[in-house]
Amino acid sequence: MFNLISLKNGLENIEGFKFGGVSAGFKPNGDNDLGFIRSDEPVDVSAVFTSNKFKAAPIRHFLRYEPNFKTNFILLNSKNANAMTGEAGINDIDEIFAQIGKNVNLTNPIMSSTGVIGYRLNKEKIIAGTSKFDLNSRDSDATVRAIMTTDSFKKELAFRVELEDGSSFNIACICKGAGMINPAFATMLCFVLTDANIPKSDMDELLAGCVKHSFNAVSVDGDTSTNDTLMLLTSRKSGTYNKEAFKFALEQITLNMALNLVKDGEGSTKVVAFEVNGALNDLEAEVGAKALSNSLLVKTAIFGEDPNWGRIASTIGASGIECCDKSLVIYYDDVLVFDKDHPELDEQREAKAHAVMQKDSYKISCSLGIGDGKFTAYGCDLGHTYVKINADYRS
Amino acid sequence: MFNLISLKNGLENIEGFKFGGVSAGFKPNGDNDLGFIRSDEPVDVSAVFTSNKFKAAPIRHFLRYEPNFKTNFILLNSKNANAMTGEAGINDIDEIFAQIGKNVNLTNPIMSSTGVIGYRLNKEKIIAGTSKFDLNSRDSDATVRAIMTTDSFKKELAFRVELEDGSSFNIACICKGAGMINPAFATMLCFVLTDANIPKSDMDELLAGCVKHSFNAVSVDGDTSTNDTLMLLTSRKSGTYNKEAFKFALEQITLNMALNLVKDGEGSTKVVAFEVNGALNDLEAEVGAKALSNSLLVKTAIFGEDPNWGRIASTIGASGIECCDKSLVIYYDDVLVFDKDHPELDEQREAKAHAVMQKDSYKISCSLGIGDGKFTAYGCDLGHTYVKINADYRS
Repeated sequence: MFNLISLKNGLENIEGFKFGGVSAGFKPNGDNDLGFIRSDEPVDVSAVFTSNKFKAAPIRHFLRYEPNFKTNFILLNSKNANAMTGEAGINDIDEIFAQIGKNVNLTNPIMSSTGVIGYRLNKEKIIAGTSKFDLNSRDSDATVRAIMTTDSFKKELAFRVELEDGSSFNIACICKGAGMINPAFATMLCFVLTDANIPKSDMDELLAGCVKHSFNAVSVDGDTSTNDTLMLLTSRKSGTYNKEAFKFALEQITLNMALNLVKDGEGSTKVVAFEVNGALNDLEAEVGAKALSNSLLVKTAIFGEDPNWGRIASTIGASGIECCDKSLVIYYDDVLVFDKDHPELDEQREAKAHAVMQKDSYKISCSLGIGDGKFTAYGCDLGHTYVKINADYRS
Repeated sequence: MFNLISLKNGLENIEGFKFGGVSAGFKPNGDNDLGFIRSDEPVDVSAVFTSNKFKAAPIRHFLRYEPNFKTNFILLNSKNANAMTGEAGINDIDEIFAQIGKNVNLTNPIMSSTGVIGYRLNKEKIIAGTSKFDLNSRDSDATVRAIMTTDSFKKELAFRVELEDGSSFNIACICKGAGMINPAFATMLCFVLTDANIPKSDMDELLAGCVKHSFNAVSVDGDTSTNDTLMLLTSRKSGTYNKEAFKFALEQITLNMALNLVKDGEGSTKVVAFEVNGALNDLEAEVGAKALSNSLLVKTAIFGEDPNWGRIASTIGASGIECCDKSLVIYYDDVLVFDKDHPELDEQREAKAHAVMQKDSYKISCSLGIGDGKFTAYGCDLGHTYVKINADYRS
């Protein structure tokens, strides 16, 4: 037994870390574009990165460290992804840290970037920006703003986890998303800090496990970026830990962040849960659910609030998974829109389904009636704003 | 050696068939929505259908006939796909043909439908409509209009193929598309008629082969419909045939139709060829090329005429195929936009690439430098009109 208590603010709830952000002059509006997270002592770090073959330079830089390395510094920047920049892009990171290291004690420093692909970093401007850091600040808001790009709202969350013995630990995260949010996740940076006394092996195991039903289950536009990063660091300052409780808290925090990413998907106005159950197995359910969350025809029907369940059925049928129209049942929340005895949507059920679709969030569930496989994916609608944002020259 | 000569008009060029269309009152604007293609004698027919598991009733009805059956009648309708209508939908087709058969000699009649999913056919209205057919008409235009839905222009094409011995045969087709055009093809109906003296086995082989680089290589929105149908019928009236020449003509006619489908993709303003070469093998090249043609970020960048090659690279990297940034080379037509020695797009090359993107059609090619695999997929941009068409209530 344990209690999860939602906390105000974000990273401020975690002892042992300092964090902040400044404007280095990259964002035209003068908002923060350079940030840091650092720890008093080198700490354990676990990470899950993009599956994109063209991993960005900061990820390649991270992966050059020895397994189980400890770090005391993460440098964050937006507006330039430092991706497709080859060996030079990795050397740029080393050069930046060589300069910062003249003033700060760095142990295996990490960089994490988001922005446009294909441009070298402006090292001078970044180094000049870091000189403005207040290295003792604990300002979660300033930090998260430094990694926001097309995000329309700030994403941070913190919990205290109270254990049965009266002890407690804290877990908090900041996250950026918007656009390119996809299965096998997305232009998404998420940093989770904790003071739990969690063993490194549990950090690796639980972080790898939590993405399947959170970041890997959400989609904005089906694209996967070169820079996606989920990182977990622990100061262990609380001195306490419980695996089951930590796993639960981490799953809650990552699912919450993932849903916020969908909610803030470029131009998104609705968040829809696509549940496929009764599939041959969980993998087939996942394929079907993700096909729904990525279908342009489904996404535009959601935007248009049109209970055109034919597009749902057609997408399931096209996804390649085992299915049969004799056993298919489709619900919009609790409104039955299709089963073999009700192939046509009568006026009454159509009105009810339309009412469901007018909500900000709802569930579309497809029961395949084949086996026990089940998966829920999350997606959003696709409207004019998505096109506007992404068709703008070099958005 | 053979010559391919482009002909005026469409199906009129093929002896042995009659065809026409009428308004049965389904399209609000009073345009044709019911058509037919019939032959003087029962003829051989080959067909390729959608890979969607929820195949529509007309396709299931076709597949119930014995292999190598001959037919003398195809009934075409738009506005109702007769999909997800179960056994009742198939019985509806039989009942319609039972009525028509009272006045017309029918041998294994076929139906082909396009439109909304999930509604039973209005049998009475369809039967009443067929009584208006002039069964001796040869009006290709009236026929193709009966299957058009969101198509903005008519798709028909005809060739005469002149062989070395002075003999010649003809091949012609009508086609409808728009929206849902996808690898493993689409809400697409295409009827190819010929008078070539082609053996049935060649019909099956060449029809199955021609789709890979035509209908299966194009994408409008990545969705695959329940009703996709490509059909080939021959009257053999020319009495002549050459396999190589027929194969070439069929490939030309289907590629041309496929590109017209992309050009007329809902809201499409540009047709782009995505060539991936130097891949590990042809299959990997196909996966990469189709990933590009289906990427929302690529499609919106094309709409915005933004030479943001980072989205091309990121999509290739995310597609799961073997690739490496050290050997990747990207061209927009003949403008180099990325290789490892030119990671940043200078002003001059950017201006040239932008000029390419202002054209109605162009090629984006990615050389992976890994092996000999090659594939070209075709896609279009995604702009506001696509959203408008597909978000309209029950479009």
